[in-house]
Amino acid sequence: MEIDQDYRALSVDTLSQRLGGVDAVASRVGGEPASWGIREVGDGNLNLVFIVSGDVGSVVVKQALPYVRMVGESWPLPIYRAHFEYYALVRQAKRAPGIAPEVYYFDKPQALIVMEYLHPHRILRRKLIDGERVDQLGETIGQFCARTAFRGSELSLSSPEKKADVGLFSGNVAIPAITESLVFTDPYYGAEMNHHTPELSPVVDELRRNARLKAKVQRLLMKFTANTETMLHGDLHSGSIMATDTEVRVIDPEFSQYGPMAFDLGMAVANFLMAYFSQPAHRQESELDEYQAWILEVIEACFNHFNAEFRHLWQTERTGILFPKSLFEEQGNSADDACDALLEEIRLDALAYCGIEMHRRVLSLAHNADFEEIEDTALRAKLEARNVLMGQTLIMEPEAYSDLTALADLARAYNQQEVL
Amino acid sequence: MEIDQDYRALSVDTLSQRLGGVDAVASRVGGEPASWGIREVGDGNLNLVFIVSGDVGSVVVKQALPYVRMVGESWPLPIYRAHFEYYALVRQAKRAPGIAPEVYYFDKPQALIVMEYLHPHRILRRKLIDGERVDQLGETIGQFCARTAFRGSELSLSSPEKKADVGLFSGNVAIPAITESLVFTDPYYGAEMNHHTPELSPVVDELRRNARLKAKVQRLLMKFTANTETMLHGDLHSGSIMATDTEVRVIDPEFSQYGPMAFDLGMAVANFLMAYFSQPAHRQESELDEYQAWILEVIEACFNHFNAEFRHLWQTERTGILFPKSLFEEQGNSADDACDALLEEIRLDALAYCGIEMHRRVLSLAHNADFEEIEDTALRAKLEARNVLMGQTLIMEPEAYSDLTALADLARAYNQQEVL
Repeated sequence: MEIDQDYRALSVDTLSQRLGGVDAVASRVGGEPASWGIREVGDGNLNLVFIVSGDVGSVVVKQALPYVRMVGESWPLPIYRAHFEYYALVRQAKRAPGIAPEVYYFDKPQALIVMEYLHPHRILRRKLIDGERVDQLGETIGQFCARTAFRGSELSLSSPEKKADVGLFSGNVAIPAITESLVFTDPYYGAEMNHHTPELSPVVDELRRNARLKAKVQRLLMKFTANTETMLHGDLHSGSIMATDTEVRVIDPEFSQYGPMAFDLGMAVANFLMAYFSQPAHRQESELDEYQAWILEVIEACFNHFNAEFRHLWQTERTGILFPKSLFEEQGNSADDACDALLEEIRLDALAYCGIEMHRRVLSLAHNADFEEIEDTALRAKLEARNVLMGQTLIMEPEAYSDLTALADLARAYNQQEVL
Repeated sequence: MEIDQDYRALSVDTLSQRLGGVDAVASRVGGEPASWGIREVGDGNLNLVFIVSGDVGSVVVKQALPYVRMVGESWPLPIYRAHFEYYALVRQAKRAPGIAPEVYYFDKPQALIVMEYLHPHRILRRKLIDGERVDQLGETIGQFCARTAFRGSELSLSSPEKKADVGLFSGNVAIPAITESLVFTDPYYGAEMNHHTPELSPVVDELRRNARLKAKVQRLLMKFTANTETMLHGDLHSGSIMATDTEVRVIDPEFSQYGPMAFDLGMAVANFLMAYFSQPAHRQESELDEYQAWILEVIEACFNHFNAEFRHLWQTERTGILFPKSLFEEQGNSADDACDALLEEIRLDALAYCGIEMHRRVLSLAHNADFEEIEDTALRAKLEARNVLMGQTLIMEPEAYSDLTALADLARAYNQQEVL
C-alpha cells in the first residue's frame, strides 16, 4: 500500500492550521485555532500523539508515521495501521461501549484520528509502578475482553458479516508480522534487536535450549496467525490501558487483527503479573505484600468476569452460526456445557499466551517500564527471572493452573524464589 | 458483489461463437469453431460444464450460474465462486503439480474457466460404485492433501504473502456459508432442505438427541470457520476426484477457502468410508470382501502418505514464519517432535471432520450416489446406519482411532453390525 502523496506528518506548528477548519475538531476544542494549546505527547513506540486544548475542551490527535518511531526511518511501517486502529475503535465502541476513546474525526489519507481526551486518566502501567489502585480494574478488563471476543465472533455475527470483516482486516499485513516475530519468535533465539538484562543471561540461555517450550510457543503462534475467531485489540498491555482510581479505559488498538479469543485476555493478565513481580523494586516493604495481593485479586477478577460475561452473552446473544439454538435449546438440550468447555479452552490458551508475553517483554525488543526502570540490574534480573520462569510454567502446563487459586499460588511461589 | 452486466450463461448453441476467437481455446480444439462438437455434461449441483471437441483435441468449459443449479433460481449464488475456483486451480498447480486440471483460459466477468479435458478419466465415485480399483489412489490423495496443506500455510509462505491471500479468499463470503450450514449444522436438526432414508429415522433421531456430539461438531465448525491455516480444496469428496486405473486427478475446487489443514484429508477419507459401507449393495458376495479390504488399504495409504509427505516438506521446505530453523536446527534442537505432534493433531481433527462428512451425506441436502442409488431403502438404511454410527464414534473419540489398525478394525466392526 502506497502512502497518499498528500500525506504530511503533523507538527505542533502546523496542526491548528490543518485541523482548525474541521468542525468535529474545532467545535470540541473551541476558540481561535491559532490560540489552541498543542502538546506532542507520543511516548509510545510508533506514532505522533498531540493533545489539543482550547476554550471548550481538549481532544487527542493521533497520526501514524510511515516508520517505527522508536527505531527510526530505517524501519518503515505502513501508515494504514491508523485505518485499522479506526476500524477497531468504532467496532469496540459498538461491542463494548464506554471503554475505547470516542472517535470524533478520521482522515484516512492523513492516517489521522481525532478522539476523546482522557483526563485525568493515567497510563495504567505508571499507576501500577506508583502503587496506585484502580477500582474495578480486573472486572472491566475481563468484561471488555469477553464482550469484544464474543460479539466479534460467529457466536454473534452472521457468516457473511464476519467474512467481510476478516477480509477488511486482512489488508493489514505489516502489523501482524511484527507481533509474530517480536512476541512469538525473537524471545527464543538471539534475534538482532533483542536485549536483556546482562545478569539474566543464565536463565535466558536455559530457556532458549528448551525445545519442547519452543515447539509449544510455535504451535500457539500458528493458532494466533491462522485464526480469525474474533477481532482482537491485539496489544492489550498495561500501556494500552488508561485509568483514574475509579474508571478504566482501553486505548491504542492499532495492532488489531482477527485472532484467537484467548489472546487479549492472556496479554492483559501477563502485564498484571509483570507488575506483580516487579513490585519489590518499587514498593516499601510495608506496602509490598498488600499491594501485590491486590494485583493477584485483579487477575482473579479479570478471569472471573471474563467467564461470567461470556456466559451471559452466550445465553442472551447467541445469534450467530456457531452453537445455534436450533441444535440445543430448541431440541431441549442445554448448551451450557459447551460454553463451559469453550471457556476452559480459552482459559488454557490465555495462560499460555500470558506466558509468552511475560517472556517477550524482558527478552525481545520492546521491554516494560515495570522492569526496565529498575536501575539495579542485579535486582532487576532477579525479579525478571521469576517472571520468565513462571511464564515458562504457564506455557508448558497451563492445565495445572486453570484453577485460579493454583495460579495465584504459583505467582506467590515464584515471588519467593531466589533464582539468581 | 454484482453480476457483470455483460454476463451471459453459455449454451451449446452460443459457445463456439463466443469462444471461437479465443486463441487459447481455438488452438487446442482446432478446426472451424462452427464444426466443434459441444456437449453439456454438468451433472454437479452448481454449474454449466461443456466438453468442446475439434480436430486437434478437447477442452472443458466450466461456467458458474448465478444460482444453485440443483435447486434453481430460488437459491441465488454469486458467480464469483468461479473466480475462487480459478485462484485455487492455479495455486494447486504450483503447490501440488500435475493433480488439478491445467487452466487454459479464464474470463472473469463471464465466470468462465477453460481447462484440460481429462480423458479417459471417470469420476472416482462411479468407479468405486462399479468396483474398479485405482493404483496409487490413497498415495496420491494423501500427498496432494499434504502438499497443498503445507505449501499453503505459514510453514512455507511468508506472513505478508499468506495474509494477502487470506484477504483475497475472504472475498468469498457465500460459499463458506453453504459448507457451514449444510455440513456442520443441518445434519443435526430437522433443517428444511434435509432428507434421509425413512427407515433410518430411529438412528437419526438418536443422533440428534446427542448434545455432547452436537457440541463437538460445533466446536469443529468454529475451528473450520475461524481458521486460515492453509488453502483448502474445500470439497474433496469422491465426486471431485477423477481417475483412470492408474492416474488420479482432483477437480472442482470452487469451495476453496483458507481453513484447517485437517479438513480436506478428513473429507476424502469419509468418502472412502462411505464407499466401503455401501459396497454390500453394489458387489457380488464373491468380490465384496476383497474390494472392501482394498478400500481400507486406500484409507491407510492416504493417511500414511499424508504424514510421510508432510514430514518430508517439514524437513526440506520449512521456510515460513512457523517453527523457524532459527529456533530449532540452528540451536541444535530437532523440530521432528514438533512435526509429529502437529501431525497427531491433524490426524485427530481429520477423523472428526471425517465423521461429520459421513453424517451430512446421508442426513443433509446433498447425498452421495454410493448410498442414494441403492433402491432397496431397507438395505440402504441398514448400510447408512453403520456409516452414521461410525461417524459418531469418530467425532466423539477420535483419539481412540488415531492408530490406523484400530481405525480399520472399527470400520470392519460396524460393517458387521446389524443396527436396523
